[in-house]
Amino acid sequence: MSDSEGSTAGLVIIGNEILSGRTQDTNARTLAQRLGTIGIPLREVRIVPDEDWAIVEAVEALRLRCTYVFTTGGIGPTHDDITAASIAAAFGLPLERDAEAERILRAHYGTDLTEARLKMAEMPRGATLIENPVSAAPGFRIGNVLVLAGVPKIMQAMLESVLPGLSGGPPLLSRAISAAAREGDIAAALSAIQDRWPAVEIGSYPWARGGLVGTTLVARGTDRAVLEAVVTDLCAMIDGMGLDATILERGA
Amino acid sequence: MSDSEGSTAGLVIIGNEILSGRTQDTNARTLAQRLGTIGIPLREVRIVPDEDWAIVEAVEALRLRCTYVFTTGGIGPTHDDITAASIAAAFGLPLERDAEAERILRAHYGTDLTEARLKMAEMPRGATLIENPVSAAPGFRIGNVLVLAGVPKIMQAMLESVLPGLSGGPPLLSRAISAAAREGDIAAALSAIQDRWPAVEIGSYPWARGGLVGTTLVARGTDRAVLEAVVTDLCAMIDGMGLDATILERGA
Repeated sequence: MSDSEGSTAGLVIIGNEILSGRTQDTNARTLAQRLGTIGIPLREVRIVPDEDWAIVEAVEALRLRCTYVFTTGGIGPTHDDITAASIAAAFGLPLERDAEAERILRAHYGTDLTEARLKMAEMPRGATLIENPVSAAPGFRIGNVLVLAGVPKIMQAMLESVLPGLSGGPPLLSRAISAAAREGDIAAALSAIQDRWPAVEIGSYPWARGGLVGTTLVARGTDRAVLEAVVTDLCAMIDGMGLDATILERGA
Repeated sequence: MSDSEGSTAGLVIIGNEILSGRTQDTNARTLAQRLGTIGIPLREVRIVPDEDWAIVEAVEALRLRCTYVFTTGGIGPTHDDITAASIAAAFGLPLERDAEAERILRAHYGTDLTEARLKMAEMPRGATLIENPVSAAPGFRIGNVLVLAGVPKIMQAMLESVLPGLSGGPPLLSRAISAAAREGDIAAALSAIQDRWPAVEIGSYPWARGGLVGTTLVARGTDRAVLEAVVTDLCAMIDGMGLDATILERGA
């Protein structure tokens, strides 16, 4: 499926805790699903350590090829939170204390506003704030890069606040059928169906449960009628296999 | 924490189903944890679509900077399985049918060995096979790139079969303390502790549960005695805060 005409997104996940295997990332999936609903396909994800050169390199690479680049993680008050400084470096901009961010932090923390917490007001010059309704400290946007928190609940709240401002396209729709059919038996016919419908991306995912093996076929695209036609073709393919295959489920 | 002396790993996750948000990846965490036990830190992960240029680019970038590059996904019999061809392209090698892989497939599938299934025997010239005890079709290794299945159970079995042949280092150990202390209150003292122990990587992860906010501090390194000394410092820091902070938990 080509997206050469529409908006696209990239994601840079910043965090040693993901790369060490201590924490299971879920932000990539959340972002992918929410962006899909507004027609912005996620094209690449990079998970990088809390090191400035790694963050700079990943952001520089993705911001040239994606309409939007999201980052998650590394925007807290501690020594390992280096995202803002790294993004400033990636853009060649000075890191400055943002007056509005400072006001938000001051209102939230009062006399507890330590020097460390004030670090959360530092961002590249010219950044615009992204609201954090959960824990006050804002994210920010500079150019096409949107810097979000790593804690999933905060990341999600920030994402919801920026989604209305993004230029999307028609929502990405999907239709799936699950069949008791083995990938290797349907591969040739499936390939012919993919060739017939180049505007739809057809994925094939084998599974095994309780002794039964099967395949889930997923068609993704933006035109509902075309997707229905593809599903009709897929079902005809499975039905055509006779006793060797059965459709178990049809859904989104 | 520097790993300039030891082995490192990168991971390329190949799959539109991850980028669409349909499937939650778990292979990155599994790989990170298992490699950690043999002293090979995972340094970067890239999630890319089922497109040859994307796979080639990610593999080329990571294989130059990591001792080992793993890939997951895209090695089945269907049209969207293009990993082997893309890896061959990344190495500038011809894609050929491997005789031993064909023998394995023939033994497993018998008369069901379709042309599509034979595609799973195609790999870059000179590849060595990676055993698949779950569903027969092998992965392969070429140079420093190890090509594994995407289905987690098969990926894990392939990983276990290759781990003994990798050059690791001392296992990566971690010690964690969880405290009812807010990140912004401990950030300055924590930074001083990080400066005192440069060979240990200290991460700080805020959390909120049922009205209580706190921070989990994670120290990672290879020297158990040094890690214990860091934990002693971290606990003294928390204890020194008096009523503002309490250690809730100590563990790995």
